[in-house]
Amino acid sequence: MGCSGFFNCIGKDGKIYDDLKYVWLQGRQVWMYCRLYRTMERFHKPEILQAAKSGGAFLRSFARVSNSGSPWKCAFCLTRDGKALKVQRTIFSECFYVMAMDELARVTGDNDMQVEAAQMMDQLVHWVRVDSSGLGRPQLPGDTPVCSMAVPMMLLCLVQQLTEGRSGEQVDKYQEVGSWCVKQILQHLQRGGTAILESVSVEGKELPGCQGRLQNPGHALEAGWFLLQYGVKNGDQELQRTAVDKFMEVPFLTGWDTEHGGLFYFLDVDGYCPTQLEWSMKLWWPHCEALIAYLMAYSQYREPALLERFAQVYDYTFSHFSDAENGEWFGYLTQEGKVTLDFKGGPFKGFFHVPRSLYMCEKILDSILEK
Amino acid sequence: MGCSGFFNCIGKDGKIYDDLKYVWLQGRQVWMYCRLYRTMERFHKPEILQAAKSGGAFLRSFARVSNSGSPWKCAFCLTRDGKALKVQRTIFSECFYVMAMDELARVTGDNDMQVEAAQMMDQLVHWVRVDSSGLGRPQLPGDTPVCSMAVPMMLLCLVQQLTEGRSGEQVDKYQEVGSWCVKQILQHLQRGGTAILESVSVEGKELPGCQGRLQNPGHALEAGWFLLQYGVKNGDQELQRTAVDKFMEVPFLTGWDTEHGGLFYFLDVDGYCPTQLEWSMKLWWPHCEALIAYLMAYSQYREPALLERFAQVYDYTFSHFSDAENGEWFGYLTQEGKVTLDFKGGPFKGFFHVPRSLYMCEKILDSILEK
Repeated sequence: MGCSGFFNCIGKDGKIYDDLKYVWLQGRQVWMYCRLYRTMERFHKPEILQAAKSGGAFLRSFARVSNSGSPWKCAFCLTRDGKALKVQRTIFSECFYVMAMDELARVTGDNDMQVEAAQMMDQLVHWVRVDSSGLGRPQLPGDTPVCSMAVPMMLLCLVQQLTEGRSGEQVDKYQEVGSWCVKQILQHLQRGGTAILESVSVEGKELPGCQGRLQNPGHALEAGWFLLQYGVKNGDQELQRTAVDKFMEVPFLTGWDTEHGGLFYFLDVDGYCPTQLEWSMKLWWPHCEALIAYLMAYSQYREPALLERFAQVYDYTFSHFSDAENGEWFGYLTQEGKVTLDFKGGPFKGFFHVPRSLYMCEKILDSILEK
Repeated sequence: MGCSGFFNCIGKDGKIYDDLKYVWLQGRQVWMYCRLYRTMERFHKPEILQAAKSGGAFLRSFARVSNSGSPWKCAFCLTRDGKALKVQRTIFSECFYVMAMDELARVTGDNDMQVEAAQMMDQLVHWVRVDSSGLGRPQLPGDTPVCSMAVPMMLLCLVQQLTEGRSGEQVDKYQEVGSWCVKQILQHLQRGGTAILESVSVEGKELPGCQGRLQNPGHALEAGWFLLQYGVKNGDQELQRTAVDKFMEVPFLTGWDTEHGGLFYFLDVDGYCPTQLEWSMKLWWPHCEALIAYLMAYSQYREPALLERFAQVYDYTFSHFSDAENGEWFGYLTQEGKVTLDFKGGPFKGFFHVPRSLYMCEKILDSILEK
């Protein structure tokens, strides 16, 4: 009998080079299969549903860490047969678990899974807004709380997942969470609207040192389309404009490498060298997010400059990341654009950013053509 | 009143770009100052001793994490005024604390510090050989114990530190630890003597997957000179030859970039792409270790091929890492040899590998000239 779950470490030609299973990637893959199955006719195939169910069963059997103090804490990495190997003291494994369960519930009609997703969402909101001690971080006197943009982004993504096409009391509750997330994300717009900073203080002020100055242009662009989507849904014109002018244009203007093309991974807002060894590399996912962001922005405003941005990112992305020889995309290039890690799947690269970007862009293009 | 301790984050021109204080680097800097003060006449200056004492006082006041369950657990990173910000669940902060305290005790004659170093060493040996639960790693069913070469290397380094020029009961105890460390390090020589692997099973066998295949050529070269030094001290001819033929030649032949020069940071023994984003970068410290290794090997065997290796590493190192404009060395180059992180000091680059390498090489050259 097989172990179920998906291999994540896939070499340039499709060969498996490691059998560990990463919970972020398992959850994202289940979500993506279900979303394609549910919303795109050409992917409405039994084998896709079957793969999603099988991945969901693996997650339900093995993702949660039994002895962590909370029944909701999930592992980050599992052995092939589902034994927990690493646990992160963050919320992201759990977030992707929610996404997987909710989307799987939508395609299977399994109410238990939807309830499970909602319960885990409650736990996530509790960890983020009430008490984070259950995440297992040691209490250290110098480790003052910090707001990381990833956290409200992730929760906003879950709010959109859990409310789509639904109504009722629980949806009202999530609406409040959603507007809290938006306020939190907007706090990362700093320096009079000239910079998006990854981490700010709980009072929404700039933090000292490297941590405070860190920018991640691709992450800001992803926040941009999250905000734009939310603004459109809620009819908030001002938020839509902020999403485009601040969360898309600002990171593009600072993050695009005018010499070699592509988006830097990290930058320091004061021009110091980031301490992340990979700061100057070009990663696939910021480019996936930029494609969605600019096409969505163009779809909303029809400004030619936004389409030009899309085209500029598109040209770089498809000429550098996609692999004509063996299919799929490479994930990691040097600043100069050379493929430096040649695998197609790894501990942080799964079936998510590339298909989500292609899926979102196709949906947006369809809507443009329809109008 | 100042905060004491050393700034670690120093830009290309000497400007401080972050005020966090990293315990590894604080301990190493104290050690290096003391070693220079104690053993090199031109550094026997009161201001060097004063800096070392001041750094030692900072460590004694702030390095230990009070609420960690063990009085010996040290932080990894402190705020400027000494509040713990991060704790690693490894032994390295504590190891550098021992090095600092023991060497400071040697120059000041402060017996309390020597006792403290010895007590912490006992705790380290206990964590490594008896029970690691005090390090705070969660017990996870898939996280089976693994032997990392860094651990016995570090302990062997401490054994040499704590026994140098001393005798007595405690030294005998350390001798046993030292020979255990050597046996452990030798377990990382795998595949019939053709590869040094960073991690092996507790039975000394190769591990599956990426972790099992990982090579770090600079780290193997560092182990090489540790073993050679130990072999010379203990009159072990076979160990000396293994150190040179296996722990120096093997990583050099696999780790040297024949296209662009320099040592790769990580490699996969089966030729897969490592999953570390920085695998192909050229870091300063492996080159520092290679300089020591080959000069020590040449000094021992006087084989011209070993001197040629030294010259090859020397040419690459001094033409790429040292900064003629503002002094000191850069730490991080692309595969092609371009400086990509331009700071002189950062979270992992302090006053240690460069001065230790220059110091060791000068000592070895002096001994060659004397003979």
